[in-house]
Amino acid sequence: MSSKPTFAPAHASDIEAFDHETDVLVVGFGCAGGAAALEAAGSGADVLVIERAGGPGGSSAMSGGELYLGGGTPLQQSSGYRDSPDNMFAYLKAALGPDADEEKIRLYCDGSREHFDWFCGLGLTFNPGLYDGQSWMPPTQDGLMWLGENAWPYDRLADAVPRGHRPATESFGGWLIMEKLVAAVKAAGVETHVDTVATRLMLDDDGRVVGVVARQYGTTVTYRARKAVIVTTGGFVDNEEMLFEHAPVLSGHAKVSDGLDDGSGISMGLAIGAAVRRMSVTQIAAQVLPAMIARGMLVNGLGQRFINEDVYPGLASVAAVRHQPGPYWVIIDQEGYDDIPERDLWNVRPSHVCERLGELEEELGLPEGSLESTVAAYNHWAERGEDPQFHKNKRWLRSLKAPFAAIDPRKGFDSGSEGGGGTTGVAGFTLGGLRTTVDGRVLDVSGNEIPGLYAAGRASAGMFGQGYISGTSLGDGTFFGRRAGRAAAVGIGNTTSDSGAQDAG
Amino acid sequence: MSSKPTFAPAHASDIEAFDHETDVLVVGFGCAGGAAALEAAGSGADVLVIERAGGPGGSSAMSGGELYLGGGTPLQQSSGYRDSPDNMFAYLKAALGPDADEEKIRLYCDGSREHFDWFCGLGLTFNPGLYDGQSWMPPTQDGLMWLGENAWPYDRLADAVPRGHRPATESFGGWLIMEKLVAAVKAAGVETHVDTVATRLMLDDDGRVVGVVARQYGTTVTYRARKAVIVTTGGFVDNEEMLFEHAPVLSGHAKVSDGLDDGSGISMGLAIGAAVRRMSVTQIAAQVLPAMIARGMLVNGLGQRFINEDVYPGLASVAAVRHQPGPYWVIIDQEGYDDIPERDLWNVRPSHVCERLGELEEELGLPEGSLESTVAAYNHWAERGEDPQFHKNKRWLRSLKAPFAAIDPRKGFDSGSEGGGGTTGVAGFTLGGLRTTVDGRVLDVSGNEIPGLYAAGRASAGMFGQGYISGTSLGDGTFFGRRAGRAAAVGIGNTTSDSGAQDAG
Repeated sequence: MSSKPTFAPAHASDIEAFDHETDVLVVGFGCAGGAAALEAAGSGADVLVIERAGGPGGSSAMSGGELYLGGGTPLQQSSGYRDSPDNMFAYLKAALGPDADEEKIRLYCDGSREHFDWFCGLGLTFNPGLYDGQSWMPPTQDGLMWLGENAWPYDRLADAVPRGHRPATESFGGWLIMEKLVAAVKAAGVETHVDTVATRLMLDDDGRVVGVVARQYGTTVTYRARKAVIVTTGGFVDNEEMLFEHAPVLSGHAKVSDGLDDGSGISMGLAIGAAVRRMSVTQIAAQVLPAMIARGMLVNGLGQRFINEDVYPGLASVAAVRHQPGPYWVIIDQEGYDDIPERDLWNVRPSHVCERLGELEEELGLPEGSLESTVAAYNHWAERGEDPQFHKNKRWLRSLKAPFAAIDPRKGFDSGSEGGGGTTGVAGFTLGGLRTTVDGRVLDVSGNEIPGLYAAGRASAGMFGQGYISGTSLGDGTFFGRRAGRAAAVGIGNTTSDSGAQDAG
Repeated sequence: MSSKPTFAPAHASDIEAFDHETDVLVVGFGCAGGAAALEAAGSGADVLVIERAGGPGGSSAMSGGELYLGGGTPLQQSSGYRDSPDNMFAYLKAALGPDADEEKIRLYCDGSREHFDWFCGLGLTFNPGLYDGQSWMPPTQDGLMWLGENAWPYDRLADAVPRGHRPATESFGGWLIMEKLVAAVKAAGVETHVDTVATRLMLDDDGRVVGVVARQYGTTVTYRARKAVIVTTGGFVDNEEMLFEHAPVLSGHAKVSDGLDDGSGISMGLAIGAAVRRMSVTQIAAQVLPAMIARGMLVNGLGQRFINEDVYPGLASVAAVRHQPGPYWVIIDQEGYDDIPERDLWNVRPSHVCERLGELEEELGLPEGSLESTVAAYNHWAERGEDPQFHKNKRWLRSLKAPFAAIDPRKGFDSGSEGGGGTTGVAGFTLGGLRTTVDGRVLDVSGNEIPGLYAAGRASAGMFGQGYISGTSLGDGTFFGRRAGRAAAVGIGNTTSDSGAQDAG
């Protein structure tokens, strides 16, 4: 029998002397680990962070840096929008659903205003102004952006207010958030060991998690945590075997990660009987320009539209990749194309341009007449400022005229390259993970808390049902990371707190 | 902290004397447990089966009794069809995919001819004759039925041969299969303890599974298994919490089960670090008559067709429930309705009948003109014997004429009752479970075998990717149940066999 590297727990009784000891050990220094470490230290605990990479940051540092915040932040107010926790909850419950974690969303919305202040306290600033377009990443320096709130049916379920908060920086802002967070963690006196990968949780004789075994420059190192271990190791999108087992929809697609999201924290938890939830749920992003599909249309392999193209672009991506017969295409006309603000920024070029829709059908391999009838119906209603099928906002409705162009969203921004299977333009990450209470306590498969073990960020299952919105990952990671850090700092005996097991049942 | 009933393992070293002892302990007496017990006994092991219900049978006994078999069975041959393991593999790989377990499917197809003989050896007989229609359950006594093999695109991927084998009985045949299997198990000298529910696995000091703790008439009973424990406790469709955590698509729908598929075997495994896979995958069946949709059309909430209506009806159900905006409707005309062989058998009555499609659109709340254009396009091509969009077989293509009728598949056969949320007509069960090798050995989260632990049937993840075909559940349960029984009978040291860990890696 060929044995594989094991995630099976180690036992403290087998350890003569631990190499390192602390109150709270945080495993992984992305946004969730940083937030947990900072709050645990702020609560008076001795905190140590270990990180497998050569420095902190993780996938968080490589992200766009959008933060999904609301409930009436100064930035919303200065842009002329009134928001409330209830209004934010109404949107998020729908947008992250169906089957979202309403208890977590409720806390997240109620605490969002304070959480914005926390980010400001780290030294982050937000430029005033709203980018009033459709984009993954606005081409302007505005601090606020829409993330689906103004699209049907969400604009009927809640007052449409923008909640995408972007820290002031040139483009992608994840690095800046992590730079500020890392500095704050360091200033709080927290020690960080880099190039240190946790391989096994450590249990005492009562089954309590009391540390980890790690590898550091090829040698084994042991860490004892007097109060708690907080697992913030990220998701499992970089582990092809785990993807195949749990979320094969992402197999073969591009990864949104730092390359180290191998699910090891989830596996270490599973090995001691921790519960996971929603392991099949993923974020999926087709890298097509949202500004392009909003101005044109998105059709499936039958030449049919299937969604209002002005939704949060991740929702359009999921609708296509998960639910439609492929290949799917963005169809646009010259006027729409010329109108795209980010056209040159991302160097997007159509792969097909035709004078007649019949030609385009043939080039794209769509059924004869399909695109013609889809565009005819679209134009018929667009001229009346309506979209009775999908309810795209009338600001984007305009009759499409020749010449027509098409682009395959699966090809990514560099539309010149064909890519392997054409999926370089579809990327994602995993949203399932360890089952936690709202304070980050990890539950076992029976629904009981595992003493000493906490998780946050994408190593845990967050607020998500089947849906996702940009900024909720950094948002949920830091918000529930902070809660985990505070709860963990209390340490042994903490399960008598009023926000623990009972609530999570 | 309020503690829940725990699935955490017990330890043999804490047990002074076991109440019962055997070589191979089988937990659960459905088709997988019966098959495992029979083969383990046939391999010379002392075998004991415990079953939580008052008698054997489980969900298997309540099923339709279809067995998915092929590769050239006598029944296929006498009906004039030539099949081969390769041809069967080509179909199943596609129909159970994407991302099906090809290793298991390969073995299943290669062994299918022998597996048919095994069923005959139990005393089951199969009437000659093919029911050449579309049905969940043919209204005739023919022993053979189609299960999607003759529908596009499967008819292009493999030679279309029917493989649904039905034991000779009046209607649902699951009880008969279990009656014969139970008799054979008893004749093999296997003892069965009913009203006995396993609550925890038992480990020795090396982490080997050596028995279970059970409850029997309110008292705790311990079982020692000298060689192996085989978990065949079924899926988790009856556990609303597990459904919400892993497969919320079935939450609130009807269950296809005996009411006891609570996932306890999966949870007992998880509690000792076993791996699960594909916990989100489910079978979904809209109870609409397949003979009705084949003769008419299935449309979504936008009045669009989305699949060739002559596919295996579970595939049409999944396409609707998982992927289409609801509500979905079956549309049919008078001639088609009159032509349904099972119309009176199931007492199906349309909920809406209209002379004009415009009226029907209004009654069903479909977009204006949507049904008219869908039917017009359908009729245009049907008159030419073609379906360029979805490739329905021309035997079912016919221009639809007034009057038109509609029925909501979510309402079930009793279309008079509205039901709670109208989902009484959608039913399903879970396909995810413990990760096993082809010999039923349960793997832990590191990918290593858990000594002494086996699983089969719906407590394990079977051959399935995202797809399902009737008869593969009884088929996979008995086929891999038999393999698990044989492997388990070998007992301690069995991991040196040539079909174990290495293959499963």
